[in-house]
Amino acid sequence: MIAVAALRRPARSETGDPLLLTPGPLTTSKSVKEAMVHDWGSRDAAFLALNRQVMERLPEVVHGEGRYVTVPMQGSGTFAVEAMLTTFAPKHGRVLVLVNGAYGQRARRILEIAGRRVVLHETPEDTPPDLAAVDRILAEASEITHVFAVHCETTSGILNPIDDIAAIVARHGKRLLIDAMSAFGALPLDAREGPFDAVAASANKCLEGVPGLAFVICLREALAGTEGQATTLTLDLFDQNKAFEKTGQFRFTPPIHVIVAFHQALEEFWAEGGVAGRRGRYSDNARVLIDGMRALGFRTLLTDALQAPIIATFHTPEHPNFDFQRFYDSLRARGYVIYPGKLTVADSFRIGCIGRLTAEDMRGALEAVRETLIDMDVDLAGAR
Amino acid sequence: MIAVAALRRPARSETGDPLLLTPGPLTTSKSVKEAMVHDWGSRDAAFLALNRQVMERLPEVVHGEGRYVTVPMQGSGTFAVEAMLTTFAPKHGRVLVLVNGAYGQRARRILEIAGRRVVLHETPEDTPPDLAAVDRILAEASEITHVFAVHCETTSGILNPIDDIAAIVARHGKRLLIDAMSAFGALPLDAREGPFDAVAASANKCLEGVPGLAFVICLREALAGTEGQATTLTLDLFDQNKAFEKTGQFRFTPPIHVIVAFHQALEEFWAEGGVAGRRGRYSDNARVLIDGMRALGFRTLLTDALQAPIIATFHTPEHPNFDFQRFYDSLRARGYVIYPGKLTVADSFRIGCIGRLTAEDMRGALEAVRETLIDMDVDLAGAR
Repeated sequence: MIAVAALRRPARSETGDPLLLTPGPLTTSKSVKEAMVHDWGSRDAAFLALNRQVMERLPEVVHGEGRYVTVPMQGSGTFAVEAMLTTFAPKHGRVLVLVNGAYGQRARRILEIAGRRVVLHETPEDTPPDLAAVDRILAEASEITHVFAVHCETTSGILNPIDDIAAIVARHGKRLLIDAMSAFGALPLDAREGPFDAVAASANKCLEGVPGLAFVICLREALAGTEGQATTLTLDLFDQNKAFEKTGQFRFTPPIHVIVAFHQALEEFWAEGGVAGRRGRYSDNARVLIDGMRALGFRTLLTDALQAPIIATFHTPEHPNFDFQRFYDSLRARGYVIYPGKLTVADSFRIGCIGRLTAEDMRGALEAVRETLIDMDVDLAGAR
Repeated sequence: MIAVAALRRPARSETGDPLLLTPGPLTTSKSVKEAMVHDWGSRDAAFLALNRQVMERLPEVVHGEGRYVTVPMQGSGTFAVEAMLTTFAPKHGRVLVLVNGAYGQRARRILEIAGRRVVLHETPEDTPPDLAAVDRILAEASEITHVFAVHCETTSGILNPIDDIAAIVARHGKRLLIDAMSAFGALPLDAREGPFDAVAASANKCLEGVPGLAFVICLREALAGTEGQATTLTLDLFDQNKAFEKTGQFRFTPPIHVIVAFHQALEEFWAEGGVAGRRGRYSDNARVLIDGMRALGFRTLLTDALQAPIIATFHTPEHPNFDFQRFYDSLRARGYVIYPGKLTVADSFRIGCIGRLTAEDMRGALEAVRETLIDMDVDLAGAR
C-alpha cells in the first residue's frame, strides 16, 4: 500500500495547484483567476460598468432586489462585518450578540472597541442559540436596538436557525444584522421571509471569487438612517453608498483585479444555477466527505441536523500514533490542503467542502486520508 | 493628419490593455498579473514564507531594516493611512496635520472621526507647507504629540520637503507620521536622515503591484507603545503585528493573489535598481511628458522645482473648442487613459508618469494629445 501511495501523483487544480479544502481562501476556477491578467482604470467607464453589474445583481441572491443595495468593502469578510456593525449600530444603542464560535466572539469585540454596548447570548460551539432565551432577552431588555447573528459559524460549521432568529427579532421590533460569510450563495437566505437590515458576506467563500473583497447587502431605508454613525472613514458604508449614488465610483482605489475576478465568478455562479446549484454540489461534497471519514473511523463534532455543507469538524482521533502536523503534511504532499489548525474548545480539525471542488475531489481526499492513516500506522474503526 | 490618426492602431500594454496614465491603479507588468493565476492556502507554509519575504524587505526601501517592521493592511492606501493614524495617534493626543491637497484633508477627516484633536496648517495646492510656521506652531502648542505630512500630494503632484519637516518635528521632540503613497519606491525617503514613527504606502503605486494591498512601515519601539489605542479591530496595526510575531499569520484572510503579485512586483523593483532605478525611469517619463505638453502649448500648475516625477497637473486650456470629456475620450480611444476628472481648486487635469511605462509610451501619449487637439480644432501655442 505504501509503495502505491508514493507512486500516485499529487492532486492538482486546473492551474496546477494543490486543492484547498479550507473554508476560504478556496480553490477557484482557472477562468476566474485568468480574468485578473488585465489592468483597468478604476474611474474609467469600462470598469465602473462591470462593477455596477456585480453590485446590482448580488441582492438577488437573498431575494432583496429593489429593496436592498450592495455596498462593497475591500478586505476580508471581517472588514465587512466591522463596517456593518460600526455603520448600523447606533452610538447609544445596544446590540444582542448571539455567539457560538469565533465569529460571534469577534463581533462582540468589534462592538466593544467601537464603544457600543453589548448583551451576549452564548452557547457552546456545537449548540445553536436557545431561541426561547433570545425571545426572553428581547422581551426584557428594551434598550436593545439590534441583534447580530452568524448564519453558518465557520468555527465548527454549525448552521444557525437564521429564519427563526429573524422572526423573533422582527416580532420584538428589533433590527437584525447577519454575518453570512461562509453560507452566502450556498445556503438559502430570503429577505422576504426573514427580514434583516444588513448581511455581510465575501467574494471568496461560496461565490468562489478570490480574496480581497467583501460586501454588505443593506436594506435601503435602514442604511439611509445611518449617516454619521460610523467610527471610521474607510469602513463607513453610508458614506461609500452616497458616493456611489452621486458618482458611480469608489471613494478609494478599489481592488480592481479582485473585482474583475468576482465578476467572472458570479457569471459562473449564475450559470451553475445560483444558490440551488451551488448548494447541490457542496451538499454532495459534504456527504461524500463525512460518510467517507466516518467509514475511516473519524467522528464529527456535529450531528447531521446541525451540519452545514460548508466545512466539517472532526474530533482528533485518540490513537497514540495520530499526529496532526504529520497528518496535515501528508495530505498536503498528496495535493490536499486542509485547515492547518485545531479548534480551541474540542480537540478537533476541519476540512472544507467549498470552492471549485467536486465529489470526485472529495473521494481523492478520502483516499489520501486513508493512505496517511496507513503511513502513520493508525487503525481507527474502518481504516483497513 | 486626421486620416493618419484614424489609421494608427491604439496603444496597448503587454496584455492588450489601454495604458494607464493615472496615479494608481496603473499599468503593471504581465508577469506581475500572471503571478495571480494560482491559488494558495492563506495559512499554508508556502504562502506564509512568500509573504514574509515581501514584508521583511520593504523597510530597506526607506533604509529602516532592523529598526522598522512592515505591517500589511488590506485595502487601498487610505486604509493604511487610517490604520496608521488611529493606531499611532493617542486618544488624548493632538495631531498637527500639514495640508496642501485632498490627502491632507482626508487625514484631518480621519482624525476627527476618530475623536483625535487636530491642529491644521494649510497651504494652497501649489504651495509647500511654511516651515517657519510649522516650527512656530510646534514651539507654541506643547500638547501636540504627532505631526502628519504627505510626501507627494497626488492631488497636484507637489513634492513636499519631507526631510526638512522631519528635522523640525524631531527638534521639537514630536513624532512624525507620513503618507508616502504615490512617492514610495520612487522618491527617496531615508529613516536614518529624517526620523519618523510610521510611513503608509501602497503596493499599487511606484512599486507597481495591483491594487488591494497597502502597508505601514513602523518604528518598532513606537509601535510597541500603541496597544489599545486603535478605534477598530481590522485597522489595528499593533494587534496585527502581535499576531505576526506570534504565528506568522494574518489575523484575517489576506488578499492572497494581490500579495503574490506584489511579491513579483518587488522582484522587478529590485531588479530595476530599487528607488534609484525607478526614479530614473519615472523622471524620464515626466521630463518627456512635461516638455512635450509645454511644446503643445499647455501650462503646468507647478514650477519644476516643486514637481515630483509622479503625476503632472496641467491647466485646462482656455481655448473655446477645448472640451475635457472629448479630450479624455479621444485619448482613451487612442489607448491612453488619463485621470478622468479635473481638480477643484485650479481648472486643471492630471496625467500620471508612473507604472510600467517608458519614455516611448509618453511620446506616444503626446502624439495622441497632438492629434486630439487637431481633431478638436484647438490651436494652443505650438499645437501645429
